[in-house]
Amino acid sequence: MALAAVDWGTSSLRGALLGDDGSVREERSLPRGILGVEPGGFPAVFASSFGDWMDAAPLALVCGMAGSRQGWMEAPYCSCPAGLQEIAGSLAWVQPGRIAIVPGLACDRDGTPDVMRGEETQVLGALDLLGLQDTQLVLPGTHSKWVRAVAGRIDGFATFMTGEVYGLLRRHSILARSMPEHEPPLDEEAFMRGLWHARQSAGLLQSAFSARTLSLFDRLAGEAAPSYLSGLVIGEELRAQGTTLAPGVVVVGDALLTRRYTMALKAWGVRHVRCVGSEAAWRGLWTLARTR
Amino acid sequence: MALAAVDWGTSSLRGALLGDDGSVREERSLPRGILGVEPGGFPAVFASSFGDWMDAAPLALVCGMAGSRQGWMEAPYCSCPAGLQEIAGSLAWVQPGRIAIVPGLACDRDGTPDVMRGEETQVLGALDLLGLQDTQLVLPGTHSKWVRAVAGRIDGFATFMTGEVYGLLRRHSILARSMPEHEPPLDEEAFMRGLWHARQSAGLLQSAFSARTLSLFDRLAGEAAPSYLSGLVIGEELRAQGTTLAPGVVVVGDALLTRRYTMALKAWGVRHVRCVGSEAAWRGLWTLARTR
Repeated sequence: MALAAVDWGTSSLRGALLGDDGSVREERSLPRGILGVEPGGFPAVFASSFGDWMDAAPLALVCGMAGSRQGWMEAPYCSCPAGLQEIAGSLAWVQPGRIAIVPGLACDRDGTPDVMRGEETQVLGALDLLGLQDTQLVLPGTHSKWVRAVAGRIDGFATFMTGEVYGLLRRHSILARSMPEHEPPLDEEAFMRGLWHARQSAGLLQSAFSARTLSLFDRLAGEAAPSYLSGLVIGEELRAQGTTLAPGVVVVGDALLTRRYTMALKAWGVRHVRCVGSEAAWRGLWTLARTR
Repeated sequence: MALAAVDWGTSSLRGALLGDDGSVREERSLPRGILGVEPGGFPAVFASSFGDWMDAAPLALVCGMAGSRQGWMEAPYCSCPAGLQEIAGSLAWVQPGRIAIVPGLACDRDGTPDVMRGEETQVLGALDLLGLQDTQLVLPGTHSKWVRAVAGRIDGFATFMTGEVYGLLRRHSILARSMPEHEPPLDEEAFMRGLWHARQSAGLLQSAFSARTLSLFDRLAGEAAPSYLSGLVIGEELRAQGTTLAPGVVVVGDALLTRRYTMALKAWGVRHVRCVGSEAAWRGLWTLARTR
């Protein structure tokens, strides 16, 4: 049974037509994230993007921000711990039997809630692809997610605003004055320098200012400064894991970001395996479709 | 001997005409920070702002960003440790014998430089006003400074980008979506809640996201959210002090900000005294004028 697998995020819309063995027959990526869709416009965008696939596939599963209050249809969060059974049992059907939205997850950490939408599907897919049941995963991004999987279910997770804070400091803070407008390629030495500085620092409010002072004293070139800052924020994210950092971590995401995280984990002496984010999403949707 | 005491910062220009006993005869505040002065325009702005005072006062001392590369005239940083003697001995004279700029300070922390301009003068003034020689001081602001005074000199210091990061998160991050456009008055309960959350958190990249999730679950009102975020960032600043936090701290600054910091220090069980920032600046410039 074929499946139209869709990951509908804030700024992008991606889909894959999967064969009954889960293999990808065709992939599409469109600049139609939910922020660019007006209320009520979701069925039309879906039809124009993937309508032809629905002739071949009896079912479409959609994960990501399409299930948020600002999305196609709100799919209430599942509570952690949650695995395939709980998530597949809580699909929100926009067209009964044909198109469903995968719910996000919520967890509670000492009285503070945390949420994810889309990453839960990638985690389920990554666990299936790697044949793992108990592990720690990180899904880098605007809002990085650190996830603890126990017995194949998502036991709990934590969000870090790493990518967003990087962008704010990079573009809108005093640090931007020492940096070029364009985004230079990764300077590995500067990145590692930022990582090490963050590791021994007391926190980002202080360590970030070093990007300014090192530039003031001509000890950090403008072209290298964005890589240094990237090392600082990713290093801060790792530092903040403290003793909860497992000896082995699965990194799920696109090639550019996972490269930085694997460099960082290596520097921390943490074993890691990578999993491509889109492959994890497609596999997660496929396993959910077979579970329900 | 009267003194024209001037604190010329990034966004504001303030001055006081001091009598020979250091008392304030007149104060002025103008929206002419160095960012709003074109290159070469500093003498004219000074003359139009304080020229009349120079009839009564033989000397003007200027502290703050006016001594930076983008200011009136670059006054090279003094190295820590530095006290009245070192700083008064390194004045940069824009008009010999008449108008001088107070140098900023630089220090080195494990190979990373840090800098201040203007705060060194406030610290010297606060020590003099309070009759202290050995203490820890905090000067809250866009870039908060934590200063260690030993034997009346500034031994070292550290910068925290607290105010700037608050503004970025408050106005430009996803957290802004849960907050009103206007700046509501301080909600003390929400502020304390943010403080306590930050205190037990692993770092700001994670704790900041709680402002989003608490709003999502209707557990934080929009009107209270800016105060909660303020508690988070100030709490993060205190958390980052770790074991270097002294049992007693001098808080130097304006009334609105020092109130938040004294609330935070009280919650941490740290004794504190307050010192008004402008009074500290005037006293610092006055003691520097008598030292040279």
